[in-house]
Amino acid sequence: MAVNLPPPDPAALHPVSGLELGVAMAGIKKANRRDLLVMRLAPGSAVAGVFTRNRFCAAPVLICRKNLRNTVRALVVNTGNANAGTGGDGMKRALRVCSELASLAGCKPGEVLPFSTGVIMEPLPVERLVAGLPQALAAQSDWLSAAEAIMTTDTVPKAFSTRIRISTGEVTVTGIAKGAGMIRPNMATMLGFVATDASVPKKDLQGMLSRVVDRSFNCVTVDGDTSTNDSFILAATGAGPSARNRKDLALLEEAIAGVSGQLAQAIVRDGEGATKFVTVRVERGRSDAECRSIAYSIAHSPLVKTAFFASDPNLGRILAAIGNAGVALDTGKVDLYIDEVLVAKRGGRNPAYREEAAIAAMKKPEFTVRALLNRGKAEATVWTCDFSFDYVKINAEYRT
Amino acid sequence: MAVNLPPPDPAALHPVSGLELGVAMAGIKKANRRDLLVMRLAPGSAVAGVFTRNRFCAAPVLICRKNLRNTVRALVVNTGNANAGTGGDGMKRALRVCSELASLAGCKPGEVLPFSTGVIMEPLPVERLVAGLPQALAAQSDWLSAAEAIMTTDTVPKAFSTRIRISTGEVTVTGIAKGAGMIRPNMATMLGFVATDASVPKKDLQGMLSRVVDRSFNCVTVDGDTSTNDSFILAATGAGPSARNRKDLALLEEAIAGVSGQLAQAIVRDGEGATKFVTVRVERGRSDAECRSIAYSIAHSPLVKTAFFASDPNLGRILAAIGNAGVALDTGKVDLYIDEVLVAKRGGRNPAYREEAAIAAMKKPEFTVRALLNRGKAEATVWTCDFSFDYVKINAEYRT
Repeated sequence: MAVNLPPPDPAALHPVSGLELGVAMAGIKKANRRDLLVMRLAPGSAVAGVFTRNRFCAAPVLICRKNLRNTVRALVVNTGNANAGTGGDGMKRALRVCSELASLAGCKPGEVLPFSTGVIMEPLPVERLVAGLPQALAAQSDWLSAAEAIMTTDTVPKAFSTRIRISTGEVTVTGIAKGAGMIRPNMATMLGFVATDASVPKKDLQGMLSRVVDRSFNCVTVDGDTSTNDSFILAATGAGPSARNRKDLALLEEAIAGVSGQLAQAIVRDGEGATKFVTVRVERGRSDAECRSIAYSIAHSPLVKTAFFASDPNLGRILAAIGNAGVALDTGKVDLYIDEVLVAKRGGRNPAYREEAAIAAMKKPEFTVRALLNRGKAEATVWTCDFSFDYVKINAEYRT
Repeated sequence: MAVNLPPPDPAALHPVSGLELGVAMAGIKKANRRDLLVMRLAPGSAVAGVFTRNRFCAAPVLICRKNLRNTVRALVVNTGNANAGTGGDGMKRALRVCSELASLAGCKPGEVLPFSTGVIMEPLPVERLVAGLPQALAAQSDWLSAAEAIMTTDTVPKAFSTRIRISTGEVTVTGIAKGAGMIRPNMATMLGFVATDASVPKKDLQGMLSRVVDRSFNCVTVDGDTSTNDSFILAATGAGPSARNRKDLALLEEAIAGVSGQLAQAIVRDGEGATKFVTVRVERGRSDAECRSIAYSIAHSPLVKTAFFASDPNLGRILAAIGNAGVALDTGKVDLYIDEVLVAKRGGRNPAYREEAAIAAMKKPEFTVRALLNRGKAEATVWTCDFSFDYVKINAEYRT
């Protein structure tokens, strides 16, 4: 299953100078599996982050939000346990990880960002995690190993990299992510880390991150369940050329958006049980917000997603999802396409529509659903996958 | 599968005087299946209705909303085709059904309420439907046949009945409903019809209906997809005793709420692929609205629903769903129970909690999830089901 692209080529994942990676097998949930990643950042690195809006956010998320006010020297990520829904005890365990890593790495506990992913509401096995830290710090790992060390139900590691030229020289952007949705089924989570060696003022980095996330991770969904641990981090080590003027910052932002978009799409392609990668595009709306609401209403409907799975053009379900988005639409203006096939015209079935054409489009592993609202100029895109037997299987069997 | 109660006993489904039922096999989608129901009301009957809030509501819903301003003499229901997403052509076909029935039944087209259920965005086979009307009008059917004639993916007919004594005599309340998927009634339901022979002023009937719906159909969800055709109709024929004073109206409202609640729960019990019937209760909230938001967030989460299916107490998923409801909660106050098992206490795992206890509760075909917000006195209840392989199977195969 899954609609994955070919696996990352390690040689194409450029190292980012000013950032060192180390992975270890700490036995957090299972033995003999990479489950711990430490990233160390050169002094002077700028770091920005965005986090889940779930009110039950995990202990490490609470610590990250606080520590991002400081300089950041190290990130530590474990898989196998989310340390969410763990109350005050979870906070203590996450802080313990930060202080142990700080003393080993020679920085302050407040300069460490912790991340956890895995099952919710189980105690973090902090002794095993801490015991693995020296091994992680001693290792010199590559980005592919790092991507592997943060996987949960992912079937492939997710890593992308690019190099671009700005006015001051060549800069690298490399990133990794894990997750099977903006939702972590099984209550793992979506984690994303993108790093560049460019030198970027911290004041510019957070805005850049927010814009990039709106174009990448905030446009994907597998099952609509926002995880407790979602985190996306952008680090600029400053070990490479400096990006200060508007043009260089814009070029860099495009490169970061490119890597982030590939990571976000890779998560959907590896969506739990996914057999189809579907782009949902809503056009000619009055506002981006209404286009996005409608795109998500389509992308979250279990009935639409099971029809995708069956390659069944039971496309009235898409009209029903559009009608459910809470947008005060004039449905008589809505057109609906599957790829180039005009299915519904002005709110009703297109008289020239033949199901065979839609079936042919939907049988492909990738296709686009386009809804035209015909009342404005705004648009939004969401990437999603279908809903298959394997989604139920994976989520009914995970953990047990 | 399904968590159905025993099938209705035809003898327990009391006729409602002033209302005549007739079913027919019109071959709308399949041959040799009851798919057409006509209900005729005595002159002077009062009728009230609530309908879907889906913007892509079906042609018959638009006509019902208009015709409810008039006296109503007949209702006509077909299964096999929803006549939704069919634009102006769908309106013409639905109006044709009304005028044909009116001329056969001796009333005005504006006194007919039409209802359709089935596949969306396919043309209503109006000739076959109209050809079946004389057969339906000639038939003298009982409530069980009527319940069967409106089924789609339902595995059992849904009908309940009660008799109560009011100050003026004994009155009957009998109702039917259908629905198993695309179930997230929003101010209405899939299709539900409840009738009483009591005489009730029309001005009282609509308020009674709205309150009843808020306690019944608006508290159930199967998959969160609000349908295009949801309709719930309450008819009071007036052929029996008169309910005019406050006490009689209150007694009658309770009887109607009882029948409606049973119908609504019957829909969840027969939810597509359902193996568990789950009551989600959110208590001690600040407002009914926040309790309801959280209850629905739990009841709609695919991860929670697949965990129900697996009887897997991966209950961090429920905390995550609570955190996703868009309510600015203090999560540190939240307690979570499965039946009598205290799983999470003050936002974290209850130290005394043992998974075996939760597994034992979740293995039962019916159990209750209780979330205590501990910040007020409001509460809300939602009834839902689990998410199984069969939900995917039914919806991937339906229609094809």
